[in-house]
Amino acid sequence: MNAAPMTLTIREAVPGDEALILQFIGELAAYEKLAHEVVASESDLSATLFADNPKVFALIAEADGAACGFALYFFNYSTFLGRHGLYLEDLYVTPEARGAGAGKALLARLAKIAQDHNCGRLEWSVLDWNAPAIAFYESLGAEAMSEWTVNRLTGSALDNLAAKDRAHGDAR
Amino acid sequence: MNAAPMTLTIREAVPGDEALILQFIGELAAYEKLAHEVVASESDLSATLFADNPKVFALIAEADGAACGFALYFFNYSTFLGRHGLYLEDLYVTPEARGAGAGKALLARLAKIAQDHNCGRLEWSVLDWNAPAIAFYESLGAEAMSEWTVNRLTGSALDNLAAKDRAHGDAR
Repeated sequence: MNAAPMTLTIREAVPGDEALILQFIGELAAYEKLAHEVVASESDLSATLFADNPKVFALIAEADGAACGFALYFFNYSTFLGRHGLYLEDLYVTPEARGAGAGKALLARLAKIAQDHNCGRLEWSVLDWNAPAIAFYESLGAEAMSEWTVNRLTGSALDNLAAKDRAHGDAR
Repeated sequence: MNAAPMTLTIREAVPGDEALILQFIGELAAYEKLAHEVVASESDLSATLFADNPKVFALIAEADGAACGFALYFFNYSTFLGRHGLYLEDLYVTPEARGAGAGKALLARLAKIAQDHNCGRLEWSVLDWNAPAIAFYESLGAEAMSEWTVNRLTGSALDNLAAKDRAHGDAR
């Protein structure tokens, strides 16, 4: 007999999901060959995802009731539209659950959340060697913003720049 | 006699700045050859920048008390760090004020705000043909995240994906 099709559900992350989300973050980082960059803790996730006025949010995908993936997102902004957009920071589905539609179900829920919040866009980033992901995103009708490059300032370069600021409102 | 050096100040945007910010957005879009994409209105800016719990923020640069530029930012997130970052969506200085340090003063204030909010990063995007901006950002020690490409889903592609979602918690 064939197995019955899986039942996929998408739910909001709730307090208590921190260990699960951290596990998924680690697995995604390993896939991206960036595992050495993960320093987040469960308490970091708790303090940000479940703050009083959170600025970051997560969804959990479940297959037959067992967690099989997650999406983490926040609201970005378009000055050209004068509206918020929704930015998908992380999307991950466990290897054993891939191909059953969990990734697309997470993205569909995000698109619905974007509409519910009057967002004009859903955006995310993809690594240029991640061909399966690129093909999947193209199939959804996503546009690659290839002429833009993200710049990142961190560590001592960020500290050095901050040191050039004076107290708010001071003459410079 | 030489002119006295300009006094640069950076302040938070306040209600009443909408027309000024919209003008700067238009001038920046024209420089980016994207003026046709600007549909934002003053009321859009008011409703988002000056909401009860805003998720987007702006700074105004003034040279001798006259507005000469702006920066618009929001909080993004790093799952690897488990911390928010600060994302600079727009940075603009009027042509006549360029070279006097207003752009760097805006960035320095942003770096300070990032530190004050325990952000591990300050990030922004640059167009690949904008050589003066790229050189300026390199001089600050910014790292170009060249292996990542932003994907954007909007319009009917976003609507189509949202239509694949069912009500929260439903079996799929």
